[in-house]
Amino acid sequence: MPVATQTLEELCINSIRFLAIDAVEKAKSGHPGLPMGAAPMAFVLWDRFLRFNPKNPKWFNRDRFVLSAGHGCMLQYALLHLTGYDSVTIDDLKQFRQWGSKTPGHPENFETPGVEVTTGPLGQGIANAVGLAIAEAHIAGKFNKPDATLVDHYTYVILGDGCNMEGVSGEACSLAGHLGLGKLIALYDDNHISIDGSTDVSFTEDVNKRFEAYGWHVQHVQDGNNDLEAIAAAIEAAKAVTDKPSFIKITTTIGYGSPNKQNTAGVHGAALGGDEVKLTRENLGWEHEPFVVPEDALKHFRKAVERGAQLETDWNKIWADYKAKYAEDAAEFERLLSGKLPEGWEKTLPVYKAEDKAVATRKTSEVTLNALAPALPELIGGSADLTHSNLTYLKVSGDFQKGQYHNRNLRFGVREHGMGAICNGIALHGSGLIPYCATFLVFADYMRAAIRLSALSEAGVIYVMTHDSLALGEDGPTHQPVETLASLRAIPNLIVYRPADGNETSGAYKVAVEQANKHRPTLMAFSRQNLPQLPGSSIEKAAKGGYIVDGDENETPDLILIATGSEVHLCVEAAQKLREAGKKVRVVSLPSWEIFEEQPADYRESVLPKAVTKRLAVEAASSFGWHRYLGSEGTMISVERFGVSAPGNVAMEKFGYTVDNVLAKAKELLG
Amino acid sequence: MPVATQTLEELCINSIRFLAIDAVEKAKSGHPGLPMGAAPMAFVLWDRFLRFNPKNPKWFNRDRFVLSAGHGCMLQYALLHLTGYDSVTIDDLKQFRQWGSKTPGHPENFETPGVEVTTGPLGQGIANAVGLAIAEAHIAGKFNKPDATLVDHYTYVILGDGCNMEGVSGEACSLAGHLGLGKLIALYDDNHISIDGSTDVSFTEDVNKRFEAYGWHVQHVQDGNNDLEAIAAAIEAAKAVTDKPSFIKITTTIGYGSPNKQNTAGVHGAALGGDEVKLTRENLGWEHEPFVVPEDALKHFRKAVERGAQLETDWNKIWADYKAKYAEDAAEFERLLSGKLPEGWEKTLPVYKAEDKAVATRKTSEVTLNALAPALPELIGGSADLTHSNLTYLKVSGDFQKGQYHNRNLRFGVREHGMGAICNGIALHGSGLIPYCATFLVFADYMRAAIRLSALSEAGVIYVMTHDSLALGEDGPTHQPVETLASLRAIPNLIVYRPADGNETSGAYKVAVEQANKHRPTLMAFSRQNLPQLPGSSIEKAAKGGYIVDGDENETPDLILIATGSEVHLCVEAAQKLREAGKKVRVVSLPSWEIFEEQPADYRESVLPKAVTKRLAVEAASSFGWHRYLGSEGTMISVERFGVSAPGNVAMEKFGYTVDNVLAKAKELLG
Repeated sequence: MPVATQTLEELCINSIRFLAIDAVEKAKSGHPGLPMGAAPMAFVLWDRFLRFNPKNPKWFNRDRFVLSAGHGCMLQYALLHLTGYDSVTIDDLKQFRQWGSKTPGHPENFETPGVEVTTGPLGQGIANAVGLAIAEAHIAGKFNKPDATLVDHYTYVILGDGCNMEGVSGEACSLAGHLGLGKLIALYDDNHISIDGSTDVSFTEDVNKRFEAYGWHVQHVQDGNNDLEAIAAAIEAAKAVTDKPSFIKITTTIGYGSPNKQNTAGVHGAALGGDEVKLTRENLGWEHEPFVVPEDALKHFRKAVERGAQLETDWNKIWADYKAKYAEDAAEFERLLSGKLPEGWEKTLPVYKAEDKAVATRKTSEVTLNALAPALPELIGGSADLTHSNLTYLKVSGDFQKGQYHNRNLRFGVREHGMGAICNGIALHGSGLIPYCATFLVFADYMRAAIRLSALSEAGVIYVMTHDSLALGEDGPTHQPVETLASLRAIPNLIVYRPADGNETSGAYKVAVEQANKHRPTLMAFSRQNLPQLPGSSIEKAAKGGYIVDGDENETPDLILIATGSEVHLCVEAAQKLREAGKKVRVVSLPSWEIFEEQPADYRESVLPKAVTKRLAVEAASSFGWHRYLGSEGTMISVERFGVSAPGNVAMEKFGYTVDNVLAKAKELLG
Repeated sequence: MPVATQTLEELCINSIRFLAIDAVEKAKSGHPGLPMGAAPMAFVLWDRFLRFNPKNPKWFNRDRFVLSAGHGCMLQYALLHLTGYDSVTIDDLKQFRQWGSKTPGHPENFETPGVEVTTGPLGQGIANAVGLAIAEAHIAGKFNKPDATLVDHYTYVILGDGCNMEGVSGEACSLAGHLGLGKLIALYDDNHISIDGSTDVSFTEDVNKRFEAYGWHVQHVQDGNNDLEAIAAAIEAAKAVTDKPSFIKITTTIGYGSPNKQNTAGVHGAALGGDEVKLTRENLGWEHEPFVVPEDALKHFRKAVERGAQLETDWNKIWADYKAKYAEDAAEFERLLSGKLPEGWEKTLPVYKAEDKAVATRKTSEVTLNALAPALPELIGGSADLTHSNLTYLKVSGDFQKGQYHNRNLRFGVREHGMGAICNGIALHGSGLIPYCATFLVFADYMRAAIRLSALSEAGVIYVMTHDSLALGEDGPTHQPVETLASLRAIPNLIVYRPADGNETSGAYKVAVEQANKHRPTLMAFSRQNLPQLPGSSIEKAAKGGYIVDGDENETPDLILIATGSEVHLCVEAAQKLREAGKKVRVVSLPSWEIFEEQPADYRESVLPKAVTKRLAVEAASSFGWHRYLGSEGTMISVERFGVSAPGNVAMEKFGYTVDNVLAKAKELLG
């Protein structure tokens, strides 16, 4: 129908569609199908429900919107532009998917204000949204008063078939149902098409029934293309259910309006092409040039600016009232939102002396977590069903459960991938929370896609990974990390720490908390087995990533022993014996390669002088990546195969992790 | 009740329980709770239903049994011992979890005959089982005749709460429901306890309803501790449903029989302790010493030997009949089971000349797959909903769908993790099938836990990973691998290939197929963008993992350029220009580090002479791991951050992947 006869709502919806069509067409790259099909639900949501302030994208009590089907990002960019965000101008839309643009190929929170989380890898967004809803519930549970509702926003998600096929979404949604997160509302763009064509080829389950099984409130809107009132009614009904998350299946036509490509995979991930764009314009009666938005539509959309300003003004009154009534809580709330850590928090970090008893670093981690917990109220987290192995329970608080959202111990269940993605959501909620999560180190593999997104999307998550080598023993090779450390050290922007003792554990937490606060994730690997307290360790030294833990820093050594974690003490003992034999030996502890590499060059040279080429590295893991520290003449005691089921001390001995073997290898090197 | 009054079945079930209790107690390590609670269902299954031949664990038409809750492995070891497998003697049980034993801490197919797949990492086993059922359906669909049923075994699984919480199980089970795999029967040990305690803290969904939503046939046995007839009836009913997989929730008590620890997390993952073992013996009226099995029970269990021999004899008659009637099919069946590749298959590998047009290696991969498909009927696989991006469709066949199980194109949906685990199951079915699976390289992260298990459990899976660098362009950093290659190269026993052109693609497939046939997995990384055919490449050279692709092999070069994949041609072009400037330059293509490292030392030295220290590596990925080839003076053009959304050629140029930049860096090195 011609524009003249279109209702204002149709004009608005078609404005979204054609911005998406035109931007993808100009880039000759992108996914027009989802924006064209999901424009009605997105319009209803953004126009009638979503509370946000375009001129202050970070207004705290805004509703969070997550486009879990991130490939459809032009939907979100169009909405950001239309509703008046400064982050996405019409020129930005014309620069869709180009170098340096604010409109990258998938939504990136670190590029585009108004985008809450980074999506694209399917299933992550809905799991992030569970994290956002957990953060909201926690902050609300902590700060709201019977007479003052400071925090009460919704988290809305649009997700597609792909997200629903991914296991990570199932994990997170099962937990969301368990937790009864009533302010999480997911709109499922049920368009029956994925990249391979009809979902009939691989995805014929009853999705709504599955979400019912998870404990969600479930609805179905039959005609998501045209029935705006039904969409609105479903969202209303979802909001009315306060003790369950809501899932609204909305059946739509992918690429709606494209006469030859709608309802096909052809419109999923490629530009329509000039001819089809023309036909789509004719079909939808769209007489406007590319990137031109009809004035009536723009005017209507831009009412969001005034509406948003009013919402923030209203909230500011609540906030002013709250400050007056609850000064102490208000100060804490303000501190959290400002991103300031509490004064003196780092003084609570435990310090150890050499004579303190040998304990596992997973145990010193527990002690540290529990020392920090009272000083750092922003610390919230838990384990994927290994609480008493990972030792991650905060004794100062209780379980985060339905109705107990003020508590700080999250019970993730055996859902590592969902756990990581949920923590990304908590970190990116912007409420200053520092989420931590835990499993065995080897199971970093299960959650690697989420860890990568912590690093990419600047989510300050702390990963507490225990049982960090074949010294874990009997559980055997399925549970023994070998290549895991290398695989994690390879991830850009992720800090990896493998502490050798209590002081290094405290040092690792010092860095992890500081960096989480600066939006950078840290992963720490802790031992299952007991380790002695080293005379040469300290929090400050460990916080440099690498340092001389044993030996005279002013002498040029004949040999440098380099180790991390549970192997450092072997090197210290071996060094002692070598010195008795008249050798000058230095032991370097290298708990974090990333942090060490960020130290000034002269410091690094003072620790690992280039001139000293006799180097022996000792780590109960693969040598992959170690050559950078070995130099041309160095060697290593490493694990170049999978581990084996046996008591930990036996496994370590068989694989050569003994003082005697370090001595033998050192003597070979010294010639 | 005292032994004297126990029925034979109770004796048998308690024999399983106490072997598990005693072995864990002796090892002071392990998980007694599951075997104690699941002993009744396991006994009913193994005693009344499971068809197997203890004296020939590899008898082809045996039912496959998977203990997805692998931590309860003493259940399986006890059954293997009791039913007369030679792989697990009573002494092996006494060596539970010890160095070199046949009874490692989790079931390992490569250690213990009778164990089909390696489990322990939760959720993998049930997903493997879907693969086993797919393999059965495929081989049955291919070979069975209206008058000759050669293949018709079931795949049975015992899984627990943990498996059901993991996303990978959801992915695989959703697909299994879609495919209607009627011979897959899963027994869910519903004991309400995970390591963190009651599942009430994190897992309260309606699991049966979820499986109904997946399209499974679902039942519930209320009293799994005592009601053996109900368990048997449910398995019978499951077998009667031939067009759906079956899920039987069996409610049990973890640690059944332990007066103080049953129904608690205390019995999940630790030995009972001497006192509690004593009390459990009293409680269950078990008067036998540790590791003593009552004669009546053993005698009953050992009937499995005779039964199994009869089953195999019966099947051998069918097989003889089949051979007589269908000689050609029988020969092919025999070839597949013998693990012999067809004569001359490698002659179908495409060969390219330098003048052939530039194409993406994902395209040469497609050509190769389709050249191999008619020659290698064992090739079966597909993509995680990226068929037309990964280019993995076998044109010689149709879709593997319900009732079309003879077809070879698997449609995995957006389920990468499930896909990998399913392929492990197909590979470990023992029918000679070579499964391949595909997604974008960066999403190796989603399926890494399955890839690791391919490598560990000797599953000959071929991973076809396309879009292998930031040259994929507009999709941006969420889709651009940077650290992915390094993370995969670090995995023991996994071969990684990154071919530079058509010949290297063929060489990679040559190795991948040969190695898959020898039970070793290969992962190949292919370009999205077009690449020229190199004059110096060949299948044979590529199959060595590394070789001189350009330059005089008899001269000692001033400089070696080392590259993989899409960066090799940049080096060849730069080398040409450097030679014009009078420099002696060699270009080494290093498509597979693992295979290169397995070449003889003199060959490796001839390719990368130690004396040549001026080395420049070029790879559009992280430098992590490359130092081993750079030596003390080498340098690299690498990516040390996440990528960016922009057209691929722009991204590559901005990150320094140009001939000019290679030249500039080479000149710096040459001084």
